[in-house]
Amino acid sequence: MGYLNCSKEALAKEKEALLKAYESYKAQGLSLNMARGKPSPEQLDLAMPMLDSIHSAVECSAEDGLDCRNYGELEGIFECRMLFSDLLGVNPDNVFVGGNSSLNMMFDAITTFMTTPLYEDTTPWLNVPDRKFICPVPGYDRHFGITGFYGFEMIPVPMNSDGPDMDVVEKLVSSDSSIKGIWCVPKYSNPTGITYSDEVVKRFAALKPAAKDFRIMWDNAYCIHDISDTPDTLLNLMDECEKTGNEDLPVMFCSTSKVTFSGGGVAAMAASKYNMDFFKRRYNFATIGFDKVNMLRHTKFFKNFDGIKAHMAKHRAILEPKFNVVLEKLTSQLADAEIASWTNPNGGYFVSVNVLNGTAKRVVELCREAGVVLTGAGATFPYGNDPDDSNIRIAPSFPSVEELTKAMDIFCVCAKLAAAEKLS
Amino acid sequence: MGYLNCSKEALAKEKEALLKAYESYKAQGLSLNMARGKPSPEQLDLAMPMLDSIHSAVECSAEDGLDCRNYGELEGIFECRMLFSDLLGVNPDNVFVGGNSSLNMMFDAITTFMTTPLYEDTTPWLNVPDRKFICPVPGYDRHFGITGFYGFEMIPVPMNSDGPDMDVVEKLVSSDSSIKGIWCVPKYSNPTGITYSDEVVKRFAALKPAAKDFRIMWDNAYCIHDISDTPDTLLNLMDECEKTGNEDLPVMFCSTSKVTFSGGGVAAMAASKYNMDFFKRRYNFATIGFDKVNMLRHTKFFKNFDGIKAHMAKHRAILEPKFNVVLEKLTSQLADAEIASWTNPNGGYFVSVNVLNGTAKRVVELCREAGVVLTGAGATFPYGNDPDDSNIRIAPSFPSVEELTKAMDIFCVCAKLAAAEKLS
Repeated sequence: MGYLNCSKEALAKEKEALLKAYESYKAQGLSLNMARGKPSPEQLDLAMPMLDSIHSAVECSAEDGLDCRNYGELEGIFECRMLFSDLLGVNPDNVFVGGNSSLNMMFDAITTFMTTPLYEDTTPWLNVPDRKFICPVPGYDRHFGITGFYGFEMIPVPMNSDGPDMDVVEKLVSSDSSIKGIWCVPKYSNPTGITYSDEVVKRFAALKPAAKDFRIMWDNAYCIHDISDTPDTLLNLMDECEKTGNEDLPVMFCSTSKVTFSGGGVAAMAASKYNMDFFKRRYNFATIGFDKVNMLRHTKFFKNFDGIKAHMAKHRAILEPKFNVVLEKLTSQLADAEIASWTNPNGGYFVSVNVLNGTAKRVVELCREAGVVLTGAGATFPYGNDPDDSNIRIAPSFPSVEELTKAMDIFCVCAKLAAAEKLS
Repeated sequence: MGYLNCSKEALAKEKEALLKAYESYKAQGLSLNMARGKPSPEQLDLAMPMLDSIHSAVECSAEDGLDCRNYGELEGIFECRMLFSDLLGVNPDNVFVGGNSSLNMMFDAITTFMTTPLYEDTTPWLNVPDRKFICPVPGYDRHFGITGFYGFEMIPVPMNSDGPDMDVVEKLVSSDSSIKGIWCVPKYSNPTGITYSDEVVKRFAALKPAAKDFRIMWDNAYCIHDISDTPDTLLNLMDECEKTGNEDLPVMFCSTSKVTFSGGGVAAMAASKYNMDFFKRRYNFATIGFDKVNMLRHTKFFKNFDGIKAHMAKHRAILEPKFNVVLEKLTSQLADAEIASWTNPNGGYFVSVNVLNGTAKRVVELCREAGVVLTGAGATFPYGNDPDDSNIRIAPSFPSVEELTKAMDIFCVCAKLAAAEKLS
């Protein structure tokens, strides 16, 4: 029954039934969590053999003979840079391997721009009082957290099904030199799960920013995180930027947080020689080197890019059924009501649901009261402000299929109940 | 033969003999390194069983049940904070465990002060144009590297045998609000190996800085690194600061880089609640959490503070003979010439040698040409500027006893040869 066009009486009856269903779920005292993009224990188990990959002192040597247990090798061991060069599609010379968190590397990159001018004639961003950052919405809350912490005015730009609205991005970037960058999750975007089209990537590569020190924060978090026989493909931004002479525009990031361990993976960044030299001038004082034993553990476990891809197929086998549960429940329980829309991603970690405008907060509240924790409504927007109060990010990875089935039943009831309340 | 008071002829004859000895060493084409405080492979081997401390998924749980493989626990797992609370002598609530590098945590701390005001009425240090930092000399080159990178004017203050000259420190700190901090290695100081006396620690705790946001960077890198039956003891600065109401002054650091693996250890910082809340407001956006699997690996391996102390005794067994070689060689080969003085530390990683004024650079050059790499002369001073051109840091840990014996023979010949050249 479409809620928007049905009779008042029919809606009242529906609401009553929903309330009854909701109360019965509530009475079960459940505790289910679809809030964060956390791998499940079964996914983490896949990488357990990695912890057994180094036993003897001789196994602690990198391929070039370096003792990974000791100091040195600021940029990370070469075989690990090679691995990330495959993941990011760039030359290993342009790769820097860091600690366990790509978010931390992004934070460090923005911090570097805050304190240190990228060019002789530019200003550290801390001293650009009206500094601004473009935030495609819905987007990743922790990206917005970084630019929020550093006092940027965050400009939301709509995400389309093929990436950010590039008409808006181009206009903003070319006209305002206080706009210093844009956050991107180009493949299986957080949260909508879409992948930027070739045209969008080409338009990114062709940007003509008013700010000489404008940078594209290209967070390729889900570069190999397919869950479908028809995975998305992403055009290589660095290649495109080389064609346009814009290779200094992007700074790229990825990690093994959702490949091996979220709490003990390896992260990397990649950028042009100019940018890398800039970052390395700072890293040279910031550390003697990141954890090389963990880099080695990863390269010994995966051996090469094919090894990672084979490993990701195991993740897919665990994740795909969970995404299917979410999508089946949304379709079977929400489609008729015509009060919500959602994405159907080929990979990544999220399904993005737009519930009836003005009800997202209420849906999250209803769910929480029934024991189902969701990402806070609005979290996918800068300042937590979703002007339509509509977007909810669903993270299916952590709960079991059984838990997810129940949680989605509750979610769908809550989405309908909140809509019925709103429309009554 | 004392070089300073001997006859011209005697000195010329001595110089000739030294040159002959030097040339014969040079002809051997050696390659020896006493430059950096790197653990030797034998020391790194001591921690190999740590790599076997986690095998199964169930072993990945922290004591509170948290799956260390997954996201979360910004401050680090509690048992690891406990371990560092013992090392640093502070409450575990005041400990934050980070990545593999305490240098990186120090860099981050200074960076935070650069971008973010510590109090509502203070200025981010980036916007204090005449910002200054006190650097006890000789000191740790990588400390000076951080404040050098961030454009501080670095004020050298003499190191005495009981710590920095506190008369000078007190006068500077109380009179100039652009002086924002001081670098300290309070125990087995880098490079002199001395430990701050109780009186010096008490005077630190009683400082009355002109700058409200003045901070003591207390790098307790060698807190458990004894190599003697009569180890030094360091008064607890945090306890003293609580007595004086100055608990917000120090920020403390240490790591397991010279306990387990320099390339894969765990680092931590400790500070007052006010400072920790300040840092955590930033860390909350900078990462979801550092490598908890490595934290767990460390706590499973050591179990408790006694476990670490037992492990450090094994390090001592390897290091002490090396320090003995250095000191025996210095005594037997340099004492009579009366052109050098040196420290005799009870722990740490260095022996600090003052050669004849105006010859340190030359000694390092002579050594290099004979195949012995030393830390660059001047490295222990801000801007690499040792006004006396006298201080040389000797790092005995990495070479074998045999290599060290040869390297020290060469060093002593070079020190005497450079003095003879200078005095001729």
